[in-house]
Amino acid sequence: MPSSDSNLFIQDSIVGSAAERVVERCGLLATFTDQPGEVTRVFCSPAMKMAHETISGWMQAADMNCELDAVGNLIGKFGSHENERPIFVIGSHLDTVINAGRFDGTLGALLGLAVVEVIREANMELNFDVHVVGFSEEEGVRYSFPFIGSLGIVGQLDSTALSCVDADQVSMKDALAQFGCDVDQINSASYQDRLVVGFMEAHIEQADLLQESDVSVGVVSAIAGQTRATIKLLGQAGHAGTLLHDRRRDALAGAAELILKIESIGQQTPGLFATVGKVDAQPGLSNVISGQTELRLDLRHESDEIRKSAFDKIKSSIKSIADSRNLEAHIESAHHTPATPMNDDLTEQVNLAVGDAGLPAKSMVSGAGHDAMIMARIAPSCMLFVRCRDGISHHPDEYVSPEDIFAVLKVMVQSLIRISNQHSTDKS
Amino acid sequence: MPSSDSNLFIQDSIVGSAAERVVERCGLLATFTDQPGEVTRVFCSPAMKMAHETISGWMQAADMNCELDAVGNLIGKFGSHENERPIFVIGSHLDTVINAGRFDGTLGALLGLAVVEVIREANMELNFDVHVVGFSEEEGVRYSFPFIGSLGIVGQLDSTALSCVDADQVSMKDALAQFGCDVDQINSASYQDRLVVGFMEAHIEQADLLQESDVSVGVVSAIAGQTRATIKLLGQAGHAGTLLHDRRRDALAGAAELILKIESIGQQTPGLFATVGKVDAQPGLSNVISGQTELRLDLRHESDEIRKSAFDKIKSSIKSIADSRNLEAHIESAHHTPATPMNDDLTEQVNLAVGDAGLPAKSMVSGAGHDAMIMARIAPSCMLFVRCRDGISHHPDEYVSPEDIFAVLKVMVQSLIRISNQHSTDKS
Repeated sequence: MPSSDSNLFIQDSIVGSAAERVVERCGLLATFTDQPGEVTRVFCSPAMKMAHETISGWMQAADMNCELDAVGNLIGKFGSHENERPIFVIGSHLDTVINAGRFDGTLGALLGLAVVEVIREANMELNFDVHVVGFSEEEGVRYSFPFIGSLGIVGQLDSTALSCVDADQVSMKDALAQFGCDVDQINSASYQDRLVVGFMEAHIEQADLLQESDVSVGVVSAIAGQTRATIKLLGQAGHAGTLLHDRRRDALAGAAELILKIESIGQQTPGLFATVGKVDAQPGLSNVISGQTELRLDLRHESDEIRKSAFDKIKSSIKSIADSRNLEAHIESAHHTPATPMNDDLTEQVNLAVGDAGLPAKSMVSGAGHDAMIMARIAPSCMLFVRCRDGISHHPDEYVSPEDIFAVLKVMVQSLIRISNQHSTDKS
Repeated sequence: MPSSDSNLFIQDSIVGSAAERVVERCGLLATFTDQPGEVTRVFCSPAMKMAHETISGWMQAADMNCELDAVGNLIGKFGSHENERPIFVIGSHLDTVINAGRFDGTLGALLGLAVVEVIREANMELNFDVHVVGFSEEEGVRYSFPFIGSLGIVGQLDSTALSCVDADQVSMKDALAQFGCDVDQINSASYQDRLVVGFMEAHIEQADLLQESDVSVGVVSAIAGQTRATIKLLGQAGHAGTLLHDRRRDALAGAAELILKIESIGQQTPGLFATVGKVDAQPGLSNVISGQTELRLDLRHESDEIRKSAFDKIKSSIKSIADSRNLEAHIESAHHTPATPMNDDLTEQVNLAVGDAGLPAKSMVSGAGHDAMIMARIAPSCMLFVRCRDGISHHPDEYVSPEDIFAVLKVMVQSLIRISNQHSTDKS
């Protein structure tokens, strides 16, 4: 079984052809849409079915066995197909937001397929099977429930989720059944008891740091932890033309002070994302002082400790602002998701592969959640970011250059070979 | 014709009985409602019709001639009814907001009637006829069009207003016609060509300055001018978990800074009311940095110059905030209503009457608009505020004590006698 460094380098022409196919396929899949004129492809929709059929054809042509699992994921299996053989999983999601671009998610799934095509065409042998997964649902559009596909694969999709209904009152269970999934065997999707040696996901960056640094590919060190909180300030509504300022208890003015304080904590803490994107002032009339204002906080950092400390600062600001303005303040809800560090060993191999490809190293934190965050619960995981133009995502203007698709595919292939070799070394 | 100081003082027992009737009548009128369980009485509604019928009965019992004018006002005329005789108008509005209290507007109209009752019972002769007006519409609930009644009386209700439709698509013209108004003669409501020597309105304060000062009655020096503006800040929407703070163009954070600046200008400018009660951050998602935030400014002051200067300061703050945050800023709309000073001569007589009644002097500015603001366009006008508990208005908890109703009625009667005497002196 080849494992020497001699097979580290694959002809650029093979990678180049595969990368060109990825570009073309992204364009073709964008035509499978639930909404003509847009790219909108949601969980278990007719457009998703057509996407699956098309991708399955490509997978089969690459000697992969295809299956639809119980939670709607499309899985292409490449290798010996023996049950006891280790498995390396590559993938991303095939669903999109409403009126999306053509790359978010889809690019990562197609890059997984392209990696297999390159390995196959180059006649490489790997020390594990490769499963390419097109996750069924990451964005959470149809059921306001993200990560259905990856939660199913890690065996953590609670069966109560199946009773969620969409806007048309169709339950998730019915949607899966209509899509052809064996929904009574939801646990069959789980990879928990299988020997998964690693997971790799490539995804567009959704920011412009790579563009800013003029770099094609970034290597993700961690997916940031997140605190989401709803903060309510209660004052006293009053007539905008009769209540003098020194007698006001203006909930919106208190919220404004808090928004600026949160921004300032974000600016002063390196790597912290601190955002208020939603505010609701009641009664919401131009001539009435707001008696109640609610705002939503989104706080992210790769270090859980720094995020927690920032949240503590925000909580004490809430208290001091409320005290100084004679308002009541409540944190109505607060949900905390810990940071997910990517696996050091895999990430090291990816970084080496970046070097192999002659690209500059660029380590980054992902502020957004990705399927890799879920997959890391059962497998060592690594993640690559691909430069996207102007950081635009979730929008028809989303764009990744063919050159960058070539670059990331090359890095993925080289990474996989390195990981395979490492795996062999570990075992020897 | 009596005009000496000898008739300045009317027995408290006569005023007391009339004041008690006002209290009872406010309670009774509160039962004429479009919405059972609330006090909700809108322009030209069935409940308004019942209110008119009831008040007409009281007016006729006080030797007044009643009429419904072309814009839905109920007018009771007391005196000689000769066309060339001067007219003094007293009144306020009979419509309410949704789920109102029983005093806002109604109290002032009923006090007008009570003034006539006292004058009549005391056998006083005045140097003018007195017209008591229950204005048809001041709050603007049904057509989002306030001051319909007083605009009709000053001859400034544009006939295009008649084509406005309410939530049920009923035009103002049809509503008036169904109410029994001669809607083809809308100009007949106008007092513009009549000899109106004055207008007096009593109204609840809608703030708690009188309560704070432990005073029953305030004398309004001016109705504040108002600037209403819609300000739009444009930044760049972005992912809350991927866009670093130094690269953000957060429209909501800019709006927060502006809200605090507006509040600060309000706090630093005596007599200025500066309010942002409405804010709309788009796209309004907790995990997306706001790319566009709109806010509504409400600015009031008795001095137009000070209000204008405050607005200039706000405009320059908008510019500096937008510049420092790399936002675009637009003032989408700005409407300016000049301040309406009350008539000095009438106000002086009212202040003297306050002294007659043994009450402390309390001069105040009205931050809210009132029918007196419109009536001042055609007649010298004066206005009295009555203490309301905790400043609460537009709410079922609205409350005015019987003692304060007695006090304001006494002041109104004395004022009218003084004005009548003054009028006689002026002519002599």
